[in-house]
Amino acid sequence: MPYYIGDVIKNEKNLIARTPEKFRETGIDVRIDTRAEEIDEKAGEVRLADGIRLPYEILVLGTGTTTVLQGIPGETLEGVFALRKFTDAIRIKAWLREVSCRKVIIVGAGFIGMEMAEALRNIGIETQVFHRGTLPVSRWDPEFSKVVLEELRRNQVEFITGVETKSVEAGKDRRLRLVTNHGEDEVDMILMAVGVRPDVALAKQIGLPLGKTGAIQVNFSQQTPRAGVYAVGDCAESFHRVSGRWVHIPLGDIANKQGRIAGRNIGGRTMLFPGIVGAQSFKVFDLEVAATGLDEREAALSGFHPVSTLVWGNAIAGSMPGNTELGLKLIADQATGKLLGAQAVGKAGAVSRINTLSAALWAGLTLDDVGWLDLAYAPPFSGAWDPIHIAAQILRRKV
Amino acid sequence: MPYYIGDVIKNEKNLIARTPEKFRETGIDVRIDTRAEEIDEKAGEVRLADGIRLPYEILVLGTGTTTVLQGIPGETLEGVFALRKFTDAIRIKAWLREVSCRKVIIVGAGFIGMEMAEALRNIGIETQVFHRGTLPVSRWDPEFSKVVLEELRRNQVEFITGVETKSVEAGKDRRLRLVTNHGEDEVDMILMAVGVRPDVALAKQIGLPLGKTGAIQVNFSQQTPRAGVYAVGDCAESFHRVSGRWVHIPLGDIANKQGRIAGRNIGGRTMLFPGIVGAQSFKVFDLEVAATGLDEREAALSGFHPVSTLVWGNAIAGSMPGNTELGLKLIADQATGKLLGAQAVGKAGAVSRINTLSAALWAGLTLDDVGWLDLAYAPPFSGAWDPIHIAAQILRRKV
Repeated sequence: MPYYIGDVIKNEKNLIARTPEKFRETGIDVRIDTRAEEIDEKAGEVRLADGIRLPYEILVLGTGTTTVLQGIPGETLEGVFALRKFTDAIRIKAWLREVSCRKVIIVGAGFIGMEMAEALRNIGIETQVFHRGTLPVSRWDPEFSKVVLEELRRNQVEFITGVETKSVEAGKDRRLRLVTNHGEDEVDMILMAVGVRPDVALAKQIGLPLGKTGAIQVNFSQQTPRAGVYAVGDCAESFHRVSGRWVHIPLGDIANKQGRIAGRNIGGRTMLFPGIVGAQSFKVFDLEVAATGLDEREAALSGFHPVSTLVWGNAIAGSMPGNTELGLKLIADQATGKLLGAQAVGKAGAVSRINTLSAALWAGLTLDDVGWLDLAYAPPFSGAWDPIHIAAQILRRKV
Repeated sequence: MPYYIGDVIKNEKNLIARTPEKFRETGIDVRIDTRAEEIDEKAGEVRLADGIRLPYEILVLGTGTTTVLQGIPGETLEGVFALRKFTDAIRIKAWLREVSCRKVIIVGAGFIGMEMAEALRNIGIETQVFHRGTLPVSRWDPEFSKVVLEELRRNQVEFITGVETKSVEAGKDRRLRLVTNHGEDEVDMILMAVGVRPDVALAKQIGLPLGKTGAIQVNFSQQTPRAGVYAVGDCAESFHRVSGRWVHIPLGDIANKQGRIAGRNIGGRTMLFPGIVGAQSFKVFDLEVAATGLDEREAALSGFHPVSTLVWGNAIAGSMPGNTELGLKLIADQATGKLLGAQAVGKAGAVSRINTLSAALWAGLTLDDVGWLDLAYAPPFSGAWDPIHIAAQILRRKV
């Protein structure tokens, strides 16, 4: 019988609809709120936290990530939350009610921090983002990060730069005090969103080889180098089709796909995971922010000779009501003209362009192709020359 | 000196900003509201309607389309308009004011007719669409055409099917009577939107070869078979990358691109038009409608063995507020698994999917690629499995 061992099933709907009993009817023994403590490879057993041992022939590791903590005193106090698991979300929701939360600090300015800032502001909570650097979402060009910063400010999110956190202290009435190089701030909740790393504790225990990224090394069938052991999702590496390297980009859609690939292969219907191109996006208030492929630094690391251009154009035809600005950056290889990456920001149309360019990256298209792609033009959706065409043709001149 | 001979420059902004005088400063002699009556190839001259003869070395035909009329009595009466030129739009606007227009019939249910229906309803005019067939926009699957029909009805556009027009008669007070097999209808304006065909009058005059589509035959440099004569835009054919055939798909973005290609080649900086994949879209009220590539009929004509699937999914993650249904149809070749075409309908996200799939068609991707494309997933923009993935994986099983 297949076992599923882990936290709760991921989303609330599933949690209600698919209780362990429901699953058992389908022949899967689902053990939620259960921790796999140890893998006994010789015995072919997984030992659970309660001492129970479950036999296996094939083992799939889907251990996900752990939150990077700062290692400062008090960071595990009640009211300080990481943003990793579904149970974190439930606990945060409960805490918001319990302490009648009015003020929150988010430590970290990646896109999970941005999403939390929006969620908190939308329920009227005073929100500050404390960031080590000077601009949010460093995956994006500083020009786009500035647009994100403006969007935060327009929505009364205070953005504090150059922050070194020192400690968290318990204050009166269940309040918390965050001590930083800028002084002390008293709030009702602190969210730690400085990053995640692959959770490879069990993998290390059985000596599974890790990749250079620190995530579990897998092949196109999601097999680890150990016979009968698979790894999928945020704990595993993925093949990046543009860089030709194995990378660690922990995202839900990639995890989903790798899970299916592993399942197919285990079930005997072989299928290979064709890799990723690094497509990602987030929404912050009224802004779409998206990227795909490589940025200049990653491109140079992979041996390309990156050139780039950043253009501002129209999300829809310039003559249409409701038109908004769209920023699009393209990165290409100077020697071959091959598209390497793209970034986009705008109130509308950013994700749409990045998805189109992700298909272009997937297929290895050059700027000569991208500059002339046949897109579904109509004035409510784009200009006759889309920002994709304009940016690609500008960049083509640098190749 | 280069001459531009034709109607007004296309859009109002340009018309104001770029008068012929402005253009002359840039070295282009722009003659608006001017008709080229004859091409005298031996003399190398174009004779204008007013008798003036302009010499040329290189000739570019951008004569566009003419409206298909029904050949019924009265179809050229005042108040009956075609939908082809910028001047038609100006005349329609003027007529709406002059006769205090309250009721309009649109003859034809292609996407231009749909766009006009929306524009008229948005200014409160009673609008009827008279259609020969039973469903609008036959380029799309009947299931999607029905969604378009519902959207028309939801917005109080009356859709009359099985119509044969017989004549237009002048009524009292500048009203018009449309006589059909269904009886007589009195309205303030009639819009003829039954289609267009390439305007090849001048091309025929000089014996230029036409393609099978009836449009002017061109090559990848937009050259006609006649030395020194180019053709671009709606009067010319385009190479369809999926069918491998020369087609006539008169759309503004294609015209724009071909114009640039011709200009580059004439200017000595050679560049080839890489062709199209048939991407197109329109908006009707709150609905996005888009398609790309081939439909089953076209696919079969090109020698493919089409299989298809039509799925209904979520435009954004199912759990997000504001989610709407998205219909996506994919067509592929049974023998090779190659993607051949796609159609989409929804309140949001249809054009975005079609553009992504247009890039996939451009690159010749198969369902094995399309089912695993790395797209920029975030719940406000899609599910972890996008309808693109779901449809491609379902269709893959038929291959």
